[in-house]
Amino acid sequence: MTKEITSATNPFVKHLRALATAKKTRQESGTFIVEGWRGIKTLLEHKSTLCKLEQLVISPEWENDERLPKNIETTLLPDHLFEKISDVRSAQGILGIVRKTETENTLPESGCYLLLDNLRDPGNLGTLIRSAVGAGFDGIFLYGECVEPENPKVIRATMGAFAFCPVCPISKGEIAELLNSGFDLAVTTGLGGENLYESDFSGKTILAIGSEAHGISDELFELATKKVMIPLQPECESLNAAIAGSICMFQIKAQKIRH
Amino acid sequence: MTKEITSATNPFVKHLRALATAKKTRQESGTFIVEGWRGIKTLLEHKSTLCKLEQLVISPEWENDERLPKNIETTLLPDHLFEKISDVRSAQGILGIVRKTETENTLPESGCYLLLDNLRDPGNLGTLIRSAVGAGFDGIFLYGECVEPENPKVIRATMGAFAFCPVCPISKGEIAELLNSGFDLAVTTGLGGENLYESDFSGKTILAIGSEAHGISDELFELATKKVMIPLQPECESLNAAIAGSICMFQIKAQKIRH
Repeated sequence: MTKEITSATNPFVKHLRALATAKKTRQESGTFIVEGWRGIKTLLEHKSTLCKLEQLVISPEWENDERLPKNIETTLLPDHLFEKISDVRSAQGILGIVRKTETENTLPESGCYLLLDNLRDPGNLGTLIRSAVGAGFDGIFLYGECVEPENPKVIRATMGAFAFCPVCPISKGEIAELLNSGFDLAVTTGLGGENLYESDFSGKTILAIGSEAHGISDELFELATKKVMIPLQPECESLNAAIAGSICMFQIKAQKIRH
Repeated sequence: MTKEITSATNPFVKHLRALATAKKTRQESGTFIVEGWRGIKTLLEHKSTLCKLEQLVISPEWENDERLPKNIETTLLPDHLFEKISDVRSAQGILGIVRKTETENTLPESGCYLLLDNLRDPGNLGTLIRSAVGAGFDGIFLYGECVEPENPKVIRATMGAFAFCPVCPISKGEIAELLNSGFDLAVTTGLGGENLYESDFSGKTILAIGSEAHGISDELFELATKKVMIPLQPECESLNAAIAGSICMFQIKAQKIRH
């Protein structure tokens, strides 16, 4: 099932490079790239309802590796072509093309969700997706101008967790609808919030985390039904967005399990 | 107090570039660079016993900025020279040279410490320093081959917190001494540990976090007096090192305050 390509001008090589670098190509094709064995291994070991591993692209060192499935279309590229596609300095010589499953985006009726407000850093989004899956959150909403979740840097930072966390955009109107249906909107704030470790999260919850540069936007702050604060020493003004979000998600889940 | 340099071959410009890029220059001079206003602002607003802002280097846009102190030696560089020194794509046009205060490294008798085991990623170390200060941990020990704490990428990720967190190397023998004096060594593990949220951290504690690639090393695992596990869903094998460390530090501190 393995075909080999040796020319840099082959259209498939060009398509791979476009998938790795162009949001437009990812959106039009409904596919994206996962680089490295760890992400691919996760897709092979756990069934995902969100996406499907469609093709593998390998360098010669992977050619006879027994961990690779036989029933997936596989393309062999020489190292110098592989490096042209990969965005990572020390490419692992293996990548997958992943197809997003088409889903209806309906608003949830219950559960715990993370809402990211204009989050720009791909490493932060990827890390938060990984933490959300680890904590057992049900999905992530992106509000405003957030980084694209299929950006290769995001996918890499998720360490395979991208396949288990629905991530979709949300509007202010949709947030208002969720609040009407009984969700709490909890925002993190440095000033005047209740202590995270003393807050009650027994209801259905949307946890909002602000952008790296500007924190929570004014319109979300006004919609919030709950303001929580991670207790911080005075020398530390704020935490990294991925850290703050992860601390809150794990605390919310730990509290739900205890009560 | 502002002097101006316009030549790229000026020895001070060369020295700045060396400070930004060479560990050897940082170690021999006992100084390092903090880039951007946020780190410098933190140093100006909070007294640090660990280091001192010695000089400022600014680009023309900062020349008449009233937030800058008058009593610190300041050098003005044209933008094109400033960009040569800065390691960041969007340089903010301001950096400080910071001198480390000479301190005696004696082993502590009590408190809460983070121990990093062969941690390699500068962003992770910087983020953990920021979280340690936020949580009120007393310092960080570096075990094995960790990234250098004065690396500009580390300093940047601390967002100014570097000035309030002692970070020093530790040997296996010193860890054993600390355990003899009554410290717990808590390691995080995926398998067979007690649930973090049910663990007792009332004693003096060293929390160990493993490397990004290999987790906790065997020798530390054997020394551990406590094994804790952050409860994770099966689709997520592990958390990012900075996330895991931060969740544990804040939980340990929250528990101490509650009890």
